[in-house]
Amino acid sequence: MELLKDTIKRIEPVDSEAMEKARERQDDLTKPRGSLGKLEEISIKLAGIQGNAIPEIKNKVIFTFAGDHGIVEEGISAYPSEVTKQMVLNFLNGGAAINVLARHVNARVVVADLGVSGDIEAPELIVKKVGYGTKNFVREPAMTRAQAVEAIEAGIEIFNKQFRGAELIALGDMGIGNTTSSSAICSAITGRAPEEVTGRGTGIGEEAYRKKVTIIRKALELHKPEGRDAIDVLSKVGGFEIAGLAGVTLAAASNRVAVVSDGFISTTGALIAHTLNPDVSDYIFAAHRSVEKGHEIILEHMKLEPILDLNLRLGEGTGAALAMSIIEAGVKILREMATFSGAGVSKTVE
Amino acid sequence: MELLKDTIKRIEPVDSEAMEKARERQDDLTKPRGSLGKLEEISIKLAGIQGNAIPEIKNKVIFTFAGDHGIVEEGISAYPSEVTKQMVLNFLNGGAAINVLARHVNARVVVADLGVSGDIEAPELIVKKVGYGTKNFVREPAMTRAQAVEAIEAGIEIFNKQFRGAELIALGDMGIGNTTSSSAICSAITGRAPEEVTGRGTGIGEEAYRKKVTIIRKALELHKPEGRDAIDVLSKVGGFEIAGLAGVTLAAASNRVAVVSDGFISTTGALIAHTLNPDVSDYIFAAHRSVEKGHEIILEHMKLEPILDLNLRLGEGTGAALAMSIIEAGVKILREMATFSGAGVSKTVE
Repeated sequence: MELLKDTIKRIEPVDSEAMEKARERQDDLTKPRGSLGKLEEISIKLAGIQGNAIPEIKNKVIFTFAGDHGIVEEGISAYPSEVTKQMVLNFLNGGAAINVLARHVNARVVVADLGVSGDIEAPELIVKKVGYGTKNFVREPAMTRAQAVEAIEAGIEIFNKQFRGAELIALGDMGIGNTTSSSAICSAITGRAPEEVTGRGTGIGEEAYRKKVTIIRKALELHKPEGRDAIDVLSKVGGFEIAGLAGVTLAAASNRVAVVSDGFISTTGALIAHTLNPDVSDYIFAAHRSVEKGHEIILEHMKLEPILDLNLRLGEGTGAALAMSIIEAGVKILREMATFSGAGVSKTVE
Repeated sequence: MELLKDTIKRIEPVDSEAMEKARERQDDLTKPRGSLGKLEEISIKLAGIQGNAIPEIKNKVIFTFAGDHGIVEEGISAYPSEVTKQMVLNFLNGGAAINVLARHVNARVVVADLGVSGDIEAPELIVKKVGYGTKNFVREPAMTRAQAVEAIEAGIEIFNKQFRGAELIALGDMGIGNTTSSSAICSAITGRAPEEVTGRGTGIGEEAYRKKVTIIRKALELHKPEGRDAIDVLSKVGGFEIAGLAGVTLAAASNRVAVVSDGFISTTGALIAHTLNPDVSDYIFAAHRSVEKGHEIILEHMKLEPILDLNLRLGEGTGAALAMSIIEAGVKILREMATFSGAGVSKTVE
């Protein structure tokens, strides 16, 4: 609990003076003011995060965390739990979508097992298992409060050891059943009804979808999680990988490192971090607008505007990888473009 | 005229069989079907363009064409015409936004003068000047029909000489006053009213904006361009760089090379190409949704869905450069991801 408390305490507000200077510099670059839209805003936000009017990105890391979910035994997922383990092996072999996109944007992928239901033998895998999958939360709490804290702290430790000075990190997830946990967490924290925050995950039919909504409603009625207490919510309906990603988010913010949230699950991890310390939102870039409808609701709750909208619903950190490249583009604009005076370009006729 | 006619004639429909095979392959990759949304669609479209179920992108070129506009003397722009020349020099010195973003996505930039009003001394600049700026089209036609054809053919020639086997090319523009020409062209071809297709360009105030709309309406009433005759429209209210970009689009399609249109002006160039041969749309990726409102109308007309939405309104090919990287990501997904059988991942529980 000490590590979590210390990490939360170390998070400072972003540097508004650096942001002001970055904005001035943007306005002096050889282009009409504001004509690079979100690229300009991104660079200014990053200036605030890094506390530097001319921010820099040299290294990028994607944290893809895996965990299983006891709720899967209710038949609310299109894939069996074994797929979590199979996909972790796929990540380690470099054949998954996240590997392809991480290579494309030149980011390193850190894969960690926070609670996969089986054991995975692989030297490159970081194992910080808090349990062999969560409990079926429509019957009993997903985990204990102690486990929730342990999983968040595992995320903090993995970040601290693995970020190695990277200036931009991303959140990624793998866990069959984790959209069900995310919808339950989202409903508990934002107060929105289960049917408003529940989507079709990896692609379930109408019947399984209705069951999924019913189960989430039942679980929330059974456990009555307190939305302002993120540990309570996590312990009752959470997932180990989601808790771990909350830890990564807090650790990154406490180190003034920018975080790119991916889709619904990883943004739920960011939401847990935000509930523990609202200042973290200023350190987060929302990569994209997922097809999962709860995602939009979390983004609104955290006042984040997504960078991309590509109809993605895969997770793993895939959308975040693509957004990392856009964020880097924004930073390069600020760092590398000529100024009006430097390039001998007339500023305006008006 | 022969070069233009031949180029148009050489454009073939895209390969639907290659697209079908690409779709099958996407469905066998280790991810839920369709979960990579637009990335999947992009790869399938490119398969059709290249006539190859597993398309490839090794080289990328951005064609940034410059030209001046006589209409600027009416006071409808925030910048004076000299800025066109100054910005061309900025492109050649590597200090403009397009240079930064092209470096970021590893694309080559080809800068050409299709009709800048002054002479530019620079060995790296491709000079295919059709005139020293167009005429003020609220008083007389912007150019002759012969000049319109000459400018399109200049674009074809530049493409043919400079694409050097690249599989993906982008359109970029520079020309003070060119949103006014683009709005007039858009109105003439799509039949939409001037006020529906006219925006604030580089950032003009309310008075200049009203003047801009009035001038476009006057010019269209004076010249009565025939919307189905692209050469007629170009000659009456066009621009040399816009015509050149239409030529690049036609030449790329005739070589089965994918084209990324950028914002309002370059997409107007693509619209001219589309009016000359509607098949070209299948070769075009719309990079982004520009702030300029006529852009959306052209995209609808050509049935194109933009990849990005970043509130850009700069031109130069900046949005197209960023979209090139997303298109490349889609292609890499198709080429590099593991299949279910190859990776030992269970396909589905249902």
